[in-house]
Amino acid sequence: MTSDQFQRGFASDNYAGIHPEVLAAIAEVNHGHAQAYGDDPVTARAVALFREHLGDHVEVFPVFNGTGANVTGLQTMLRPWEAVICTQTAHIHVDECAAPERLLGGKLIDVPTPDGKLTPELVRAEYVGKGDPHHVQPTVVSITQSTELGTLYSVAEVRALAETAHELDMYLHVDGARIANAAASLQCALRETTTDVGADVLSFGGTKNGMMAGEAVVFLNPEFAANMHFIRKQHMQLASKMRFFSAQFVALLEGDLWLRNAQHANAMAQQLAKAVVDAPGVTITRKVQANAVFATLPPEIIPELQAAYPFYIWNGATNEVRWMCSWDTAADDVEQFGKLLHTLASR
Amino acid sequence: MTSDQFQRGFASDNYAGIHPEVLAAIAEVNHGHAQAYGDDPVTARAVALFREHLGDHVEVFPVFNGTGANVTGLQTMLRPWEAVICTQTAHIHVDECAAPERLLGGKLIDVPTPDGKLTPELVRAEYVGKGDPHHVQPTVVSITQSTELGTLYSVAEVRALAETAHELDMYLHVDGARIANAAASLQCALRETTTDVGADVLSFGGTKNGMMAGEAVVFLNPEFAANMHFIRKQHMQLASKMRFFSAQFVALLEGDLWLRNAQHANAMAQQLAKAVVDAPGVTITRKVQANAVFATLPPEIIPELQAAYPFYIWNGATNEVRWMCSWDTAADDVEQFGKLLHTLASR
Amino acid sequence: MTSDQFQRGFASDNYAGIHPEVLAAIAEVNHGHAQAYGDDPVTARAVALFREHLGDHVEVFPVFNGTGANVTGLQTMLRPWEAVICTQTAHIHVDECAAPERLLGGKLIDVPTPDGKLTPELVRAEYVGKGDPHHVQPTVVSITQSTELGTLYSVAEVRALAETAHELDMYLHVDGARIANAAASLQCALRETTTDVGADVLSFGGTKNGMMAGEAVVFLNPEFAANMHFIRKQHMQLASKMRFFSAQFVALLEGDLWLRNAQHANAMAQQLAKAVVDAPGVTITRKVQANAVFATLPPEIIPELQAAYPFYIWNGATNEVRWMCSWDTAADDVEQFGKLLHTLASR
Amino acid sequence: MTSDQFQRGFASDNYAGIHPEVLAAIAEVNHGHAQAYGDDPVTARAVALFREHLGDHVEVFPVFNGTGANVTGLQTMLRPWEAVICTQTAHIHVDECAAPERLLGGKLIDVPTPDGKLTPELVRAEYVGKGDPHHVQPTVVSITQSTELGTLYSVAEVRALAETAHELDMYLHVDGARIANAAASLQCALRETTTDVGADVLSFGGTKNGMMAGEAVVFLNPEFAANMHFIRKQHMQLASKMRFFSAQFVALLEGDLWLRNAQHANAMAQQLAKAVVDAPGVTITRKVQANAVFATLPPEIIPELQAAYPFYIWNGATNEVRWMCSWDTAADDVEQFGKLLHTLASR
Repeated sequence: MTSDQFQRGFASDNYAGIHPEVLAAIAEVNHGHAQAYGDDPVTARAVALFREHLGDHVEVFPVFNGTGANVTGLQTMLRPWEAVICTQTAHIHVDECAAPERLLGGKLIDVPTPDGKLTPELVRAEYVGKGDPHHVQPTVVSITQSTELGTLYSVAEVRALAETAHELDMYLHVDGARIANAAASLQCALRETTTDVGADVLSFGGTKNGMMAGEAVVFLNPEFAANMHFIRKQHMQLASKMRFFSAQFVALLEGDLWLRNAQHANAMAQQLAKAVVDAPGVTITRKVQANAVFATLPPEIIPELQAAYPFYIWNGATNEVRWMCSWDTAADDVEQFGKLLHTLASR
Repeated sequence: MTSDQFQRGFASDNYAGIHPEVLAAIAEVNHGHAQAYGDDPVTARAVALFREHLGDHVEVFPVFNGTGANVTGLQTMLRPWEAVICTQTAHIHVDECAAPERLLGGKLIDVPTPDGKLTPELVRAEYVGKGDPHHVQPTVVSITQSTELGTLYSVAEVRALAETAHELDMYLHVDGARIANAAASLQCALRETTTDVGADVLSFGGTKNGMMAGEAVVFLNPEFAANMHFIRKQHMQLASKMRFFSAQFVALLEGDLWLRNAQHANAMAQQLAKAVVDAPGVTITRKVQANAVFATLPPEIIPELQAAYPFYIWNGATNEVRWMCSWDTAADDVEQFGKLLHTLASR
Repeated sequence: MTSDQFQRGFASDNYAGIHPEVLAAIAEVNHGHAQAYGDDPVTARAVALFREHLGDHVEVFPVFNGTGANVTGLQTMLRPWEAVICTQTAHIHVDECAAPERLLGGKLIDVPTPDGKLTPELVRAEYVGKGDPHHVQPTVVSITQSTELGTLYSVAEVRALAETAHELDMYLHVDGARIANAAASLQCALRETTTDVGADVLSFGGTKNGMMAGEAVVFLNPEFAANMHFIRKQHMQLASKMRFFSAQFVALLEGDLWLRNAQHANAMAQQLAKAVVDAPGVTITRKVQANAVFATLPPEIIPELQAAYPFYIWNGATNEVRWMCSWDTAADDVEQFGKLLHTLASR
Repeated sequence: MTSDQFQRGFASDNYAGIHPEVLAAIAEVNHGHAQAYGDDPVTARAVALFREHLGDHVEVFPVFNGTGANVTGLQTMLRPWEAVICTQTAHIHVDECAAPERLLGGKLIDVPTPDGKLTPELVRAEYVGKGDPHHVQPTVVSITQSTELGTLYSVAEVRALAETAHELDMYLHVDGARIANAAASLQCALRETTTDVGADVLSFGGTKNGMMAGEAVVFLNPEFAANMHFIRKQHMQLASKMRFFSAQFVALLEGDLWLRNAQHANAMAQQLAKAVVDAPGVTITRKVQANAVFATLPPEIIPELQAAYPFYIWNGATNEVRWMCSWDTAADDVEQFGKLLHTLASR
């Protein structure tokens, strides 16, 4: 295959490849035999590293992908007559083909928001029907950090949601497919926006931050881990040659690769926003707080722009598009793209 | 980590690592961006290779693991009031934590067998209750090729089962976690023991044959593929950076790596059987037709033997053990193991 | 038990008892033995009567309750990655404890409406993501006739929704827990607002219209009935002594009892609306088109009113209440209630 | 309909009608309004009566049918990766169209038995794989009392199973579709063969003992009742006009109707066994301990016998048939049937 078959662009952070250090880490543990299904020294090392970052008490279960992490994590928190409060733009609601409903049984109570963020007030408004057998029972608040709209919860905002949830005998789930981008942007340790502010279960994202494949369900509240061994297996998220998934987490977490990758992607998004903001007819529509830029632009220039640098239309009705940056986005990509956009928009 | 943490043995073919050519194939496609979720040139290449091996008409869907392949493949064939006829030793029945029942809804009708193999007669005996709403409806016959007991269906035996299934308006599913070992042992092309004899859906095994992770659901009868895109996603078996899973299949199927690996593992099993067969108190209990050797041995020597070369006890009541060979089993491993067994058994 | 333990009011049409003619019909078939599970002459008679009312070609399956009818009927129309478009006030969305999500697997796409009614435009707006494996596939439009807000779809409105659904390769499901009230109010035959305008599957309500228990899933499009025998049994909706459920449908449908009961309940709602409309501080909030009256009233009078005639608060935030009339609502109940309301509201 | 449409026979105890006292009890509470879904005085009375019979501490939830009782009761005891040990002839295994697997998620571990009865030894033999995420976790022992083969567990046998279950951290579920027949035959109070010997959850059968419809899930161990309100609703087993189901239980339990009906059915079975035992070619194949008689007979006489008195062939291969007696079986039915059998068998 030729390089032109691997055209660079801003479509998604999962269009990027494997970070070289991650691939090297896979190769490094590729000798001899290792016990399957996670009882191996590489996984033990990965778990130890997660504990360094997120707390000595946390329990860690690598799984295959983001939907797998969200659904198995939520499965530990919910029974089939219970419900998750989330935003209308949440990945679990929009992008998982109803895997949550199919596998959890209950309901996603989806809340419209302007910025992809829940608030304690929005949560309280959906906290209805408790004890009524005709109604699902709101039990989990699920937030995405950073959000599907490229925005961020501040540390205080996460804490407020955790407190609200716990006050109502609910739990806080964090879809952290881009938790590294969030921590990098907030300039805080991973635990400061998760463990330390009361989140209960975290989907820790690896794939979008330079891994080949792999996410981890991290039980910040370890009580929820009690049955996870069975849940992970039954939900077909248990890798046999686990060491090669764990090695990738080791690569991210042993040094600061998780942070470098996220900082880079975030910085590229800032640079991209700067490069396009003053082009005629272009309006940036969301706060640029992580590695995504959302903008409206003249619809007639979209196809030519996409042909040069693939990206997705977010909302066809409003001509809003999404540009994602990743660990491998080059400054040059951004510069050329900005120039092309200016050229096209100025025609 | 040191090498001694990666102790070699005969525990399972998924204790082995990644074949170097497979890892090289991952590295080779690790540049630039590729469309996520399978719309990439590497996946297109993998699909083309599957069609070369299994038929131009087949449809191919890579998934993460064996349980994922079995359950999503079966999901395309079954509705929740229907049932699968399988052996009592079938992986779907014994080793998948009831994922099939949980996710398919119906029942596994498990049949005792002496050798891990169904027969037309056994299938017919379980074909009861058709049309009765109180009973599950037998709809799929599922066989494992090679079996969990290291035995093989001949090409004629698979054909007879497919014909019986179709005559009864049922379908034939093949759990091919070790389909390469089967074809290697039968000295036939992959399609000769699957497509050409009427199998409908195949779980094609990659992990146990040298891949890092990845199986493929191959629809030999492409009608069953109609909804697989949704089923794979909803069952959390859709990889975002698919190219790196597809690249592994390319490595196996482009040349003869799939065959070399399987032939080697099979040959090592033959050699192992030869090395142990005349040790005092050792009886080989199953035909050695693929890459597994089952034997009973004096219970008192098992722990010391396991300490040197890890393996599993298959049946504690009868002191039957299982020794699995893999693509990386060394002739020297086998020789040393045989010697140790003789020494221990002769004490 | 004394009569005062059975206090009359306007809480729900399922607070009422069994119509004497229905109870007599149960008694009438209570002799000798009858084949269980529906293979009995009483069920055959009930099915024949349904066909007289709804079309010779329809298939009929009695079930236990409304949730059972909705879920099993929808089950015949949907696969787990498909979705139902319904209103935000739909019984399936609000009052069934997520049984639809739990048992169907997919998603309810709930649409806000002012009057509890879908329109072709609202349906089209939710018809998105077709073919995208990340999204549930909109497949069924479900309406409630008469609605949970006491409003009605005209015959033309149902036809327009059926046509829209079919144009989009979707199907129309009708939750007819109060279909008799709808037909009575529309002054049309049952089939004119269902079969003749293209509805595919109907939950035919019996309990709220004078039966002890029992609803029927009626397949106006009989193709959907193919697997219903299995679905009904597996969903635990198959009565063994079916004749006693079927006898109740015979009582409703053999003469005009279904219509008399519904006309009476509707008439009582009209009378009740008239009796309260000019009370100080009382505003009727929804069109009174079937057997329900919704109104806002001064909050301070609600408890005393409820003590005399139980009813439910529909929306505590707006002091909106719901008054349901049933086949046994007495003109005297309505008159006394109206007087009491006037007295309290005038204080 | 004419009486000949209601031909008497020995097909099933659910071919019988409603006992007149039960029907009268329905009529008796048919006035005024009652709160729906079980918050009514009739249900309160039924619960009180259940407590008199089974213990002050028990929790009681009426449901629609036997499969509903079994599945919702088991649902309170199990998570989807757990399993039920039962006999191969258990109703939950054979006659519920995989509703248990579909709705509970896990597995039924079905054990062959000669007499339809589990033993502590059989249970222990299936208690494997605990803690292994690849295996379902055995969690509930389910027995049927009296069994599907018309046999009985003695009080001591139930106690031994409860003790075994509890010793292994499992629970004991009793499918008591015919628990009244069991207690009548054992000449013990209902609680002596359930509560007092350690059973945890009981499906209490009403339908087969003279009710129109209705079973009750009785939580002898009330801890399991915690979520039953939600489970019953979500599984579509919650009747709106509950008073009419509860009234039937009141009729059974207020006096000794439950016992009279069961004693009568049991006595008829004894009489039937006596009437047929010495007919040529007839062999009674199971102990006659409740209301069923199983026998092998010359196959050529079966059709004529069935034409006169309908009954089911239990095993076509062995010409074994089942004759069920019910609360309404007449001594005359039995006598005539015996005579006919003798005549046919002597030809």
